[in-house]
Parts: sequence; C-alpha cells; structure tokens
Amino acid sequence: MKLFTAISLIFILTLNCMAQIPNDSIWWPSKWGSEDQRGAANYITPEKILEATSLIKKGQVYELGRVYEQDMPLLGSRHYKLTLKGLPSSGPTGDHQVVYNSELISGELGQVGTQFDGLGHVGTHVNGENIFYNGFKLSEFGTTEGLTKLGIENVGAIFTRGVLLDIAKYKNVKQLDSTYIISVADIEGTLTKQNVKITEGDVVLFHTGWGQLWMRDNEKYGRSEPGPGITAIKWLIEKGIVMTGADNWGVEAIPGEDPNRIGEGHQWLMNRNGVYNLENLDLSSLAADNVYEFAFIFVPLKLKGATGSPGNPIAIR
Amino acid sequence: MKLFTAISLIFILTLNCMAQIPNDSIWWPSKWGSEDQRGAANYITPEKILEATSLIKKGQVYELGRVYEQDMPLLGSRHYKLTLKGLPSSGPTGDHQVVYNSELISGELGQVGTQFDGLGHVGTHVNGENIFYNGFKLSEFGTTEGLTKLGIENVGAIFTRGVLLDIAKYKNVKQLDSTYIISVADIEGTLTKQNVKITEGDVVLFHTGWGQLWMRDNEKYGRSEPGPGITAIKWLIEKGIVMTGADNWGVEAIPGEDPNRIGEGHQWLMNRNGVYNLENLDLSSLAADNVYEFAFIFVPLKLKGATGSPGNPIAIR
Amino acid sequence: MKLFTAISLIFILTLNCMAQIPNDSIWWPSKWGSEDQRGAANYITPEKILEATSLIKKGQVYELGRVYEQDMPLLGSRHYKLTLKGLPSSGPTGDHQVVYNSELISGELGQVGTQFDGLGHVGTHVNGENIFYNGFKLSEFGTTEGLTKLGIENVGAIFTRGVLLDIAKYKNVKQLDSTYIISVADIEGTLTKQNVKITEGDVVLFHTGWGQLWMRDNEKYGRSEPGPGITAIKWLIEKGIVMTGADNWGVEAIPGEDPNRIGEGHQWLMNRNGVYNLENLDLSSLAADNVYEFAFIFVPLKLKGATGSPGNPIAIR
Amino acid sequence: MKLFTAISLIFILTLNCMAQIPNDSIWWPSKWGSEDQRGAANYITPEKILEATSLIKKGQVYELGRVYEQDMPLLGSRHYKLTLKGLPSSGPTGDHQVVYNSELISGELGQVGTQFDGLGHVGTHVNGENIFYNGFKLSEFGTTEGLTKLGIENVGAIFTRGVLLDIAKYKNVKQLDSTYIISVADIEGTLTKQNVKITEGDVVLFHTGWGQLWMRDNEKYGRSEPGPGITAIKWLIEKGIVMTGADNWGVEAIPGEDPNRIGEGHQWLMNRNGVYNLENLDLSSLAADNVYEFAFIFVPLKLKGATGSPGNPIAIR
Repeated sequence: MKLFTAISLIFILTLNCMAQIPNDSIWWPSKWGSEDQRGAANYITPEKILEATSLIKKGQVYELGRVYEQDMPLLGSRHYKLTLKGLPSSGPTGDHQVVYNSELISGELGQVGTQFDGLGHVGTHVNGENIFYNGFKLSEFGTTEGLTKLGIENVGAIFTRGVLLDIAKYKNVKQLDSTYIISVADIEGTLTKQNVKITEGDVVLFHTGWGQLWMRDNEKYGRSEPGPGITAIKWLIEKGIVMTGADNWGVEAIPGEDPNRIGEGHQWLMNRNGVYNLENLDLSSLAADNVYEFAFIFVPLKLKGATGSPGNPIAIR
Repeated sequence: MKLFTAISLIFILTLNCMAQIPNDSIWWPSKWGSEDQRGAANYITPEKILEATSLIKKGQVYELGRVYEQDMPLLGSRHYKLTLKGLPSSGPTGDHQVVYNSELISGELGQVGTQFDGLGHVGTHVNGENIFYNGFKLSEFGTTEGLTKLGIENVGAIFTRGVLLDIAKYKNVKQLDSTYIISVADIEGTLTKQNVKITEGDVVLFHTGWGQLWMRDNEKYGRSEPGPGITAIKWLIEKGIVMTGADNWGVEAIPGEDPNRIGEGHQWLMNRNGVYNLENLDLSSLAADNVYEFAFIFVPLKLKGATGSPGNPIAIR
Repeated sequence: MKLFTAISLIFILTLNCMAQIPNDSIWWPSKWGSEDQRGAANYITPEKILEATSLIKKGQVYELGRVYEQDMPLLGSRHYKLTLKGLPSSGPTGDHQVVYNSELISGELGQVGTQFDGLGHVGTHVNGENIFYNGFKLSEFGTTEGLTKLGIENVGAIFTRGVLLDIAKYKNVKQLDSTYIISVADIEGTLTKQNVKITEGDVVLFHTGWGQLWMRDNEKYGRSEPGPGITAIKWLIEKGIVMTGADNWGVEAIPGEDPNRIGEGHQWLMNRNGVYNLENLDLSSLAADNVYEFAFIFVPLKLKGATGSPGNPIAIR
Repeated sequence: MKLFTAISLIFILTLNCMAQIPNDSIWWPSKWGSEDQRGAANYITPEKILEATSLIKKGQVYELGRVYEQDMPLLGSRHYKLTLKGLPSSGPTGDHQVVYNSELISGELGQVGTQFDGLGHVGTHVNGENIFYNGFKLSEFGTTEGLTKLGIENVGAIFTRGVLLDIAKYKNVKQLDSTYIISVADIEGTLTKQNVKITEGDVVLFHTGWGQLWMRDNEKYGRSEPGPGITAIKWLIEKGIVMTGADNWGVEAIPGEDPNRIGEGHQWLMNRNGVYNLENLDLSSLAADNVYEFAFIFVPLKLKGATGSPGNPIAIR
C-alpha cells in the first residue's frame, strides 16, 4: 500500500514534468547517428554536388548576401561595429614605404545581417534541460567560450542544388503582407507555375519581397515578417531539404500560425531535424531574372563553437 | 633669371619628393579603368567560371579554411574572441519553450586566421600620401568607420580555376625552411612535375608545409615564413592571376629577398596590380591527395568598407 | 496512512535537495532588508566618511590601480584590447583645424586588471537555482544584456577608512609563498605590530608582495596566490568591513584551506554578506611608506547591470 | 641674386604654410616643462587637496556619473555594449557549488557616457602635423594600440576643490536654450549670486539644465548644447582651473560663438593649456541642494595610451 502510494506520487510528479514537454515525440537520435553534428548537411553527397554543378551553364553568379553595416536592421539589442585601426593602421615602413590598414569588428556575428543558423542556435527547454539537435544537452556542451558540440565549424560546405520560390510573384504582389503565412498550397502552386521540383538535398529560398524594406524601413522590417508557416516548414522538412532561406530576418512567418509558439519553425528545422536556416538574404536579382533553380554555394566560417556564421551565399547558373 | 631660379628650385624640390617613390613607375590608372575597385577579380568572366566548373568531376570538396579560435597564431597585438551570450542566450519562451544561443565576436576579423586581403589593405606612402590600388589616396577614401573605396564589399565571388603548387613535395621536403624563398624556377619545375599550367584568371596556392606548425608551434609559425619571393610574385602577376594563397600567414617569403623591403610582395600584388592574397590556408588535404587543379570558390563577406574578410575557401574537383 | 507516506516521500525528496546546499544556513534576507542591493556599502555613513576625511592630513595621494594593457595577467580566456580609432580619429575640420582621437575598447571590463567585484559576480548553486546576495535568484534577475538586480550601478561611492595589512613585512619576507594562507593570528599580529585596529565600515587591504610578479612573471602570478584563508575571511566579515582588497588577483588564498572549495571566500564575502572585493591592486607604495590607515576612495563605474567595475582606487593621508 | 630668389621662394612657401596655423601663437613648451604630460593636473598640490578636504563637513556624497547603457546618447557612430557571459558565466564548481558571472564590454569607452577627456584627445592640424598638448606631434606619439605620450594613465587623481555654477538658476530657467552661449558676465553674476569664487586648481562645473534631456530626448540632447562660449572658456583658463565639466555632452556651447570653429574650446582647454574636460555629468542633485563648493574627486582609469576615461566623479561636502 505504501509502495503503491509512493509510486503513485512519483508517477504524478513525473507526469507533471512530462507535461512540460512541448511536443509528444522525442527527436533523437538523429537519422545520421547519435553522434552526428552535421544534420541535413549530410544530404550533400558527391552526386548531389555534381547535380548542382550541372546547373551551371551560363557562368552567371548572384551574390545573395547583404552588406554588413552599423545601421542595418538588428534584432533586439544586437550590434555590429567596424572600426578602421588608423589610416593607415601601420607604416610606412621600409624602403618600399609600405602601409597597411586593418579593422576591428565587434558584434553578434553569426546572428546579425545575412546569417546562417547552425545547430547550436536553437533548442527546446524540457524538464529543466535545454535540448538541442540529436538530443544534446546544453548543460553538457555549452561553455561561455563556445559550444563543444554542434559548433558551426562542423557544418562544412553547402554546395548543392538551390530552388527559389517566388511566392510574391505567385501571389501577384511586390511584397507579401507583413504577417502573411505561406501555405503548402502556395508552395505547390509556385512550384507548378515555375515548373520546378524540390528534391532531397536542396536548399529552398523564399522570395517574399520583404527584403525591399532593408535599409529603407528597418523598423517595419523587424516588427514582423511574411514567411512559411509551421505547416509549410514541416512539409519542407519531409522533402529532405538541407536549408531554408528567405529575404526576411527569420525565414518563418512571425508571429506565424500560433502566437504562443513564435519561432517554432526554428525548432522543427534545426532542433528536431538538423535543417539549417539562412536569413536576411537579398533575393531580388534572382527573382527579377526568374532564376528558379541553380547551384547554391555557402561555406560557413569555421568559428569554433559558434552558433551561426555570417556569409555571402551565391547562386550560380 | 629669377623665374628660372625659382623653377629650378621647384624642380629640385620635386625631384627630392619623387626620390621618395619606392619604384620608378606609376601604377595607375588600372587596366580596368580609373574608377575600378575590383582589380584582378575582373579576370573572372562567365567563361572562366564555366572552365572552373568543368573541373568538378567527382563532387569532392576540400575546405581550405582554418578554425578561428582564441589561441590561433595572431600577428602583433591582434586578437580574436568569441563569447557565448548566455547558455541559453534567451528563453525559454512560449508554449514551445524555445531557447536560443548567440555569440559576441570581437577581433581584427579580416586580418586574423584564414584571411582574404582586399585592395584597401596595403598601400604605399609616396610624397606624404598613402596611395592604394588605382592611385586612390587614403586621405580621400579612408574614414574611421570604414573605407569609402576599395571596401571588401566590392570584390564579389571568386569562383575560378585553382592551381596548387606543392613546392614542398617538389623540393622533397615535408616543410620548406623557415625563410625559404620560392623562385620562378621552383614554380616552373613544380608545374612541369605536376603537369599543370597557370592561366589567366587562376588562383594559385602554394603548399609549403609551413601550415604544419599551426596550433603546434605558433611562435615559430609567426616568426618568419617560406614563400614566393618578390621575383616569383612579379612573374605570377604577369600570368594574370586573380589571387595567390598559401599555408602560411602572409603568402610571400618573410623576410624575403630584401630585408629592407619586407612585405613588398603585398604591394606588387594588391597595391599595384589589384591581385588578391589569401593567408593561413590549410592545404594539407589537397596536397596529400595530389590535387593540383580544381574549381576554387571563395566569397568575401560584404563587410562595408573593410580591408579584408575571414572565410572558408573551398576547392572542388 | 497514504497521506503519511506521501509526506514522508516529499520529506525525503526535500532532504535530498537540501543535502545539496553547501552550507547549513540561509543567508537572506540581508540585515539591510530583503530588497537591499548595496550590501556592506551601507556601512558607509556620513559619520564614517567624516572619520575617513579626518585621516587626510598631508594631502598625499596613492593610486592603487594597475595600468590596463593587453599583456597584463588575465584569468582564463579573458581579454583586453584598446585600439585607437585612427590617428587622428577625426578631422581636421573647421577654420581651427581641430583633430580628435578616440579609442575602442573591448574586454571583460570589470573582471580584468584592477577590478571591483560587485554583488552580481558570485553566487551559489542550490537546488537548481543560482542564488546571490540577499537570496536573489539569477533566474529572476539575470539577462544577457545585464543584471536587473545587484548591478554595479547600485553600489555608490566607497569613501571610507582604509587599513593596510602588510602581512609580507610582518612575516619578514618580500613576498609570501605562492600558496600561503594568511591566518587570523597573522592579521592580529600585523595589527598589533602596525598599531592599528579594524573597525566597522573599513576597507581592509592585504599587502602580500605577490604584486611584484605583475608584468614580470604573469604566468606565476596567475597560477596560485597567497592571501587570507576562509577562516580569516569569516573573521574579517565579523568585523563589519565593507571590502577586502589585495595585491593579487583574487584576494583570498588560492587554492586555500580546502582544495575542493576553491574561491569559497568569494561566497562568504559577496554572496552571503554583501562584502566587496578589490583585486589586482598595486600596494607597493603604501607598503614602502608604512601607510597603514588612510582615507580610501573608490567609485565604481555605473555600468548598468554589470557584475564588476574597473577602477583606480586611491588612498589619501 | 639667385640665392635671394631661392630664399624668397622658401619664405613664400613657408608663409603659406604658416597661414594654416589657426592662431598666431605657439602653445608650447608647457608651463610645467617641455616633457610634461599631466597639464593642469599639476595644479593639484597637497595644499590644494587639504583645502578640498576642509570642505567635507557633512560627509554627504553626490555621484555625478551617468549610468552607462546601450541606449544612452552617443556621438556619431559610437557604441556601447555590455553582454553577460552566460547566466552564470561559470560553474557551479566544487563542493561549495560556486557560480560566477562576468561581462564583456565593447565601445568607445572614454568617449561615451560620462567621460573625461585626456590630453591625447584633441589637437590641431598645423602644417601637415597634428599637434597636441606641449607641442607633441601625433605622428610621433600615436600608435594604433595606444598613445605613447599623453595617455590617460599619466593624469593621476583629481582630488580638488569643486565649484558648481548654476547658470540655469541664475538665468531663472530650468534649462538654458539649446544653443545658449554662457558669457563671462553670466559666470561673474552667478559667482556673485552664489557667493563663491574660482581659485587656482579648482574644477568648475556648469549646470545648464540640458542634462534633463538625457534618456528623455536623446536626439535633441545631442543636436546642440548650451554651454560656455570660447570667450568664457579663455577667461576660465586664466583662472588656473584644472577642469571644466557640465551636464551636457561637450561642455562648451555647440555651435558656439563661431560656426566655423565648432569645438574650439576643446583646443583652448586641452590642446593649448592642458585643462581637462568632463562631459555628460548629472548635476541635478547638486543644483537642487544649492551645493556650490565641495571636494571633487575623480580618478581616471589607467587605460594605457587612451585618450579618455569613463568615470563616476563625486562631489562631497
């Protein structure tokens, strides 16, 4: 009787704890093994690289990265600061009178401007633990000087097929509404209209038109954003994509389908499925030229233990 | 008579000033026009990109970038510091209990670790002016908050044919001597042995073996370095290359051919000819696999007004 | 019966949790009230200030702060970096041809060089919570952008009587041994020899001679340190002091009396009793001049939400 | 004849250069010797310290420093950023389960918020040289890593008599107009009304009421400011003061008496006379309590080679 009571109590306590788990499933171990730290980057096989290479027919490059500058849109209290170390920074020295310039940069690099979210960026708080991709616990891999697991240096080169979904054009607008939630139907309609398919290992970029606000109305740019809803994100993950990206600051619609679950797309992408995210892209030229499939190349900086990386991704056709 | 005397005096004064010019030629306007800010990146045409693409046959990627970490070899008083902004940095929030991590980075990014030297990095002090690529004067384009000309954001993607010169292997050593000066004969011999050619628009990387000291003997690594001498650099520039690179910290041999002109190769490359430089590469895997030509890809971060960029260049075959 | 069992179980669970408490007492609420954020700074009354003022008889100032420089001894991976923003940083402008210089600084300011530890610096992990002075929980007052309680901006001016304990001289050595633990007997002997007393509201500084290693043998300086042991620290706290300080990097002896409780003096000082700590002082001149009591002045920077402050404290007699 | 011509030409050239000198006098060597780096801090003798000490009668302290926070008013592109290094930043460790917090700070410290301008902050461009206090040339003492002369570490403690000039109250306003130029008559009238005198070695603080805009209307705060004009500043310098200060961002009126010579007061203070400047003070409490003379204490951080220092100056009576 006593034993039964004790067990009941433990059961109740446990139940109470479990109730804190935001979703009913456990997302680990990863399909790439319980020690995997690269997630969906594993989709990029030599064959996939060759497939992407075969899309390069004109030798035309599109830079998708934004310029990093102090006044760009920044989330919350983040900052970015570049300072020249003197003009010149050293010299002249020698008979050749050489002078050098260099600069000091400080900021939340990896999480300002064009930014690539790594697998150490987003997790879920469950029963007192912050759990990341592959079930790794932040209490075990996090240090103030950098992550000892899931650091951006593990990702490697993202050289794969890229697909642009010009949702704005599909909806016949220059810019989607400020909180527009892109649906699966929108994606399917766009794919049909553009006559392209999403295949395993692709990078999928959304043109929403929201990027037109960049450096023009930064306040509006950051207040909300149109983008794929959680339903569309789950659908994309099922396709086996490597990464989503968009011409907005967080890819997924904000506030999205459930105002009590803002940013949940990040959890489904990185945290649960190891799928990456690329934010604050400039997709205007790709969209203007109706370029819907291309070789996509991005290589994160090997910043030891970092959660993200700045970058200047390119599309080539 | 008076007039003549005055003119003589001015002539003498001018002559005296000219005497300060380290070399007898004026290097501007650039062959790409007096307003050009991209230098040798102009060699990269769509045709060159397609040529590079044709080298991708296996879909095999080599990352050439070093890991950025606080204890890596650093020139002079430069620093690099990454700090996680809390573990987690924000959250948990919402019903989905999402948590986020982000990091703060400070340092001479662009001039620490694997680094790409832009055209605003090196100049020559002539008659009281610091003159850079295309004759641009630092007094006119330099500001404390960034360069208004020659900033790294102008470069664009470097997607071209890459050539590895394994000089160490050619000389039958694991590592060239600490001050070894690579000659034109060394390069020609290596090209012959490797059965490759250098063509216009190529990126040329030197494997010296010096990179074996990285994180093993940082002090020795930074004290000097083997690399191409000024003679070899001029020879390379004549070939119309886009960029040199090496598994050392400054590409060119230090102290080089003339101890009173240390670093003069930088002036001939960037300052006079708009040819870029890529330092602190990891070329060990390329060399181990005997990969001597490949598609080379590097895209500088669009850091507004910066002199350089960090990066993780890749070679693909 | 059931109820009893349940209660037992809860009791056992609770007991188990309590067992994690490193000490058997609860240290809050503070004697200055449950909302107090200033701790022992409350000892400094107008009367105490006047007492300190009465010690100023010669008008002689001793600066106790170290010079902040990049190569100073730094704990762990901390850094300090000062960069001039151009030479000059702006100008010349106007008919008056004015030029300005300014600098950029980055580092763990407040925890590098001469540093004042605030009450948000040290806490104790108890039952899953990090508990600080006055029982405040870090989970409730900590944010990535700064502490919302116990920030250094709450402290105010430390203008009070200062006492120097020249323990090195008392022990007839230039420098105490690397792990020497100063005992209560040492303090009492020194006070007797120096003919001074410790009274409520005083700042007590220890001259150990360890500071002679500063910038001479930084590695040895940081490896361990002589200083008061936990027993002496508790004794000092009983005297009602405002702050301890020393010519070493952490004031208390490291490793101290119990190698499994390194740094516990910090907990007794700041965490439990609101007594401050001042590290990396230069006490050589005070000691050389046999100055054992003086007006002591230090005013922390009002860095919002910071855990510490850099500074240049002074002693005046 | 030839010789004469040459000399004439040199004379004309020289004259032309001299014409660039903004004022007809040479301001060096300093009255404290040609090697002096402390300027007006030399006025602070032991006697002056004792005079200041004699003003401490109540033991009442006024903190004059502003809180440093990311959103405070900042000049131009300057920034200030504090980031907690984790919550906690380290631990728990040991049987005592100690946890620590620390923060990373970056910014133009010394030139943001409450700031003390040192003698390396302001100079004059004359004939191609940037000349600072005591005739020191920036080309000779400036390095990217810090000034080798006139660094803030040379100043020492400012412990002296302070005088508050409540010009706003004298003019019967809460806040002086946005570009109001305080005249010598204003100062003399205020001194008479307040029944105080300015004596050699004093610090003179101006209460303009402008500080009421701090964190309330930062944009207006930074656009202009009331303060002493160049005439009043010269008058003050004649009195032998150590420092001016005010509840605005630059002390002197901006734009001041001559819109082509904005900031010239800085040159007369620091550059020519070695008199310091203290900006962004909070003088509201002193003014509210009608405290017009007091002991003033400020000790710059010993930031090696820096142009300025943050701080929290105090007034005590």
